[in-house]
Amino acid sequence: MKAHVSGITLGVRDLKRAKQFYSEGLGGPIQQEQGEWVSFSLGNGSSALGLYPWDALAGDAGVAAEGSGFRGITLSYIVRSEDRVDAVLAQAKRAGGKIAKPAQRGSWGGYFGYFADPDGYLWKVALGAAQDPSAAE
Amino acid sequence: MKAHVSGITLGVRDLKRAKQFYSEGLGGPIQQEQGEWVSFSLGNGSSALGLYPWDALAGDAGVAAEGSGFRGITLSYIVRSEDRVDAVLAQAKRAGGKIAKPAQRGSWGGYFGYFADPDGYLWKVALGAAQDPSAAE
Repeated sequence: MKAHVSGITLGVRDLKRAKQFYSEGLGGPIQQEQGEWVSFSLGNGSSALGLYPWDALAGDAGVAAEGSGFRGITLSYIVRSEDRVDAVLAQAKRAGGKIAKPAQRGSWGGYFGYFADPDGYLWKVALGAAQDPSAAE
Repeated sequence: MKAHVSGITLGVRDLKRAKQFYSEGLGGPIQQEQGEWVSFSLGNGSSALGLYPWDALAGDAGVAAEGSGFRGITLSYIVRSEDRVDAVLAQAKRAGGKIAKPAQRGSWGGYFGYFADPDGYLWKVALGAAQDPSAAE
């Protein structure tokens, strides 16, 4: 096994709502739609963000579907200016997300905030270093 | 915003245990280690898998740390042969993971299984199409 993630799948309570959020919030386009599976290409040619009904995803994994509270996992979205941090958080809010942590300066000097998508998945939007290869824009 | 994930961070209960699992299980190498933050490059030059203490991650996101049960999110690892599906699951188990779903043929004809890392994060290991660009190996 090597360090690689082929894809990330989010179990969602309302597929239509999540699809709309990620089409608008993440600026789509939808890569694949098949039955209750919807995926977005992550643009690096090697992974995808998928949406699938919560219970069906638990069933696919062979685990109980019950779960609540903090999921323990966060996704990050690195940008190259403070203005973009503010703009992305504002865009996510307009699209139906909630601001979990308003944009602020970190104790280490960075600038970041968090939004939660309609299902509660947390995205950290943060200013990256000028040459950060993980920056989205 | 565009469809891009700069990184995935897993909140872990035991950083040393998780670090060891991902060094061995995912075949490291560690990209960055700073205080309680450990990250692995995902090899596509544009994203990273990070490990961070559970409570600290919740605090960073501005949410309560309580959470239990199914996390609602899965990571996938696509490979190009059934043998590799079996091998990766076996490797994850040896490294301290648990098999959540033994490798099996899906109703649609695929071949896949799931393992959970020591903190319960679920990875789907699946056979991909011959030309699947998301395949890890």
